[in-house]
Amino acid sequence: MNDRESYRKPNERIDDLQRDGLYILQDPNRFCFGMDAVLLSGFAEVRKNERVLDLGTGTGILPILLAGKTQGREFVGLEIQEESADMASRSVLMNGLQDRVKIINGDAQNAHETFGASSFDVVVSNPPYMKNQHGLKNEEDAKQIARHEICGNLEDFIRETAKVLKPKGRCYFVHRPFRIVDLMELMRKYKIEPKKMQLVHPYVDHEPNMVLIEGVRGGNPWLKVEPPLIVYDKPNVYSEEALRIYGK
Amino acid sequence: MNDRESYRKPNERIDDLQRDGLYILQDPNRFCFGMDAVLLSGFAEVRKNERVLDLGTGTGILPILLAGKTQGREFVGLEIQEESADMASRSVLMNGLQDRVKIINGDAQNAHETFGASSFDVVVSNPPYMKNQHGLKNEEDAKQIARHEICGNLEDFIRETAKVLKPKGRCYFVHRPFRIVDLMELMRKYKIEPKKMQLVHPYVDHEPNMVLIEGVRGGNPWLKVEPPLIVYDKPNVYSEEALRIYGK
Repeated sequence: MNDRESYRKPNERIDDLQRDGLYILQDPNRFCFGMDAVLLSGFAEVRKNERVLDLGTGTGILPILLAGKTQGREFVGLEIQEESADMASRSVLMNGLQDRVKIINGDAQNAHETFGASSFDVVVSNPPYMKNQHGLKNEEDAKQIARHEICGNLEDFIRETAKVLKPKGRCYFVHRPFRIVDLMELMRKYKIEPKKMQLVHPYVDHEPNMVLIEGVRGGNPWLKVEPPLIVYDKPNVYSEEALRIYGK
Repeated sequence: MNDRESYRKPNERIDDLQRDGLYILQDPNRFCFGMDAVLLSGFAEVRKNERVLDLGTGTGILPILLAGKTQGREFVGLEIQEESADMASRSVLMNGLQDRVKIINGDAQNAHETFGASSFDVVVSNPPYMKNQHGLKNEEDAKQIARHEICGNLEDFIRETAKVLKPKGRCYFVHRPFRIVDLMELMRKYKIEPKKMQLVHPYVDHEPNMVLIEGVRGGNPWLKVEPPLIVYDKPNVYSEEALRIYGK
């Protein structure tokens, strides 16, 4: 049993993030992080000594990756599911990041009550994508909570982001392209100006399956749209850009 | 002097649209149509017997191209500049399209008073891109009026579009990517739901320089984002997609 093994519970596995010597605990029966979180960690910009909040951190993947690749001072991951928060906390310890990364078990829907207004330089979030449809699923299911708007919808995430961000603070979201209009309308509603957008396409001739967006609290209107991020050059062959983000 | 020459004034030239045997009059001292209009004619969908309005038609390029490629019943081009409207009318006659294409000299800012509410199945528009900045230019200049928000801003164009469209009627705009947020916010404000978006990139690794967007009056929220439209494979070599739209 090596050092890392001591943090693992029987239902969990240890995944090598293949980046900065980082590892993460995941439970295959719960929500596992996906390419969206990795791409968001590549898109988000965190400057030296900044304080960063991840709303709905899940496994803790975003604060762990961002602590590895940036010089941010503190990374806080807020997670409503107690078991996920516990697992994420043990991943932080396993990576020896406890001085810079804190996992808090709490609700994104009232994050500003937990942290206070204007308390972060940067907010990142991979909010639940799917609109909640009552009766279609088991609301207790951990994967459903991570994916569906059960414990907070997009408006809750954006409203709380606006409240906890300092003036001119930045936020970074990954979401599904079919909700770009909702994203932009809600960001404007809460005075977060969309400043940069990148669409992620599996192949150059495919529709995008993710959108990455940067907002600035109180920013001036002017959206910069990036070149498309193409993930694969051909099946099973990552593009140069994807490899760069994956740190390989 | 051939038949076409009889429609030309001395300051004008006759350009071959290289498509459906169509030609157009242009005055190099006035605003000449660009790739944006051609791409919008490829993006817009006009069904049999539909009635179509082009808000701010300029040379008449959009109604002429759409009359050539679709089975729409009537195409109306509204143009505020009298000389442009006159030239566009002669282009219509020169192409023998006067039974299906009408050019009206009038103001897009109160189009609904000219045409009545809910009077079109489809609206297309290539509105002025640039925000007006008083004092920076000669407001009488024909090119400035076509490019800047002097005779109507984006909100005017979207408001009038919403008024003249039938319920579930469709609109198609081409604009600059830096104003996507304004476009989406204003479309929602006037109950036109953005349903389809395509970004136009000169090259696959360049930022987009145009956005094409379809809206539906009273549509349900769900945006379909298309694969990127890449114009050039390499310098001076059009992509297959661009050639298809140019009809070559």
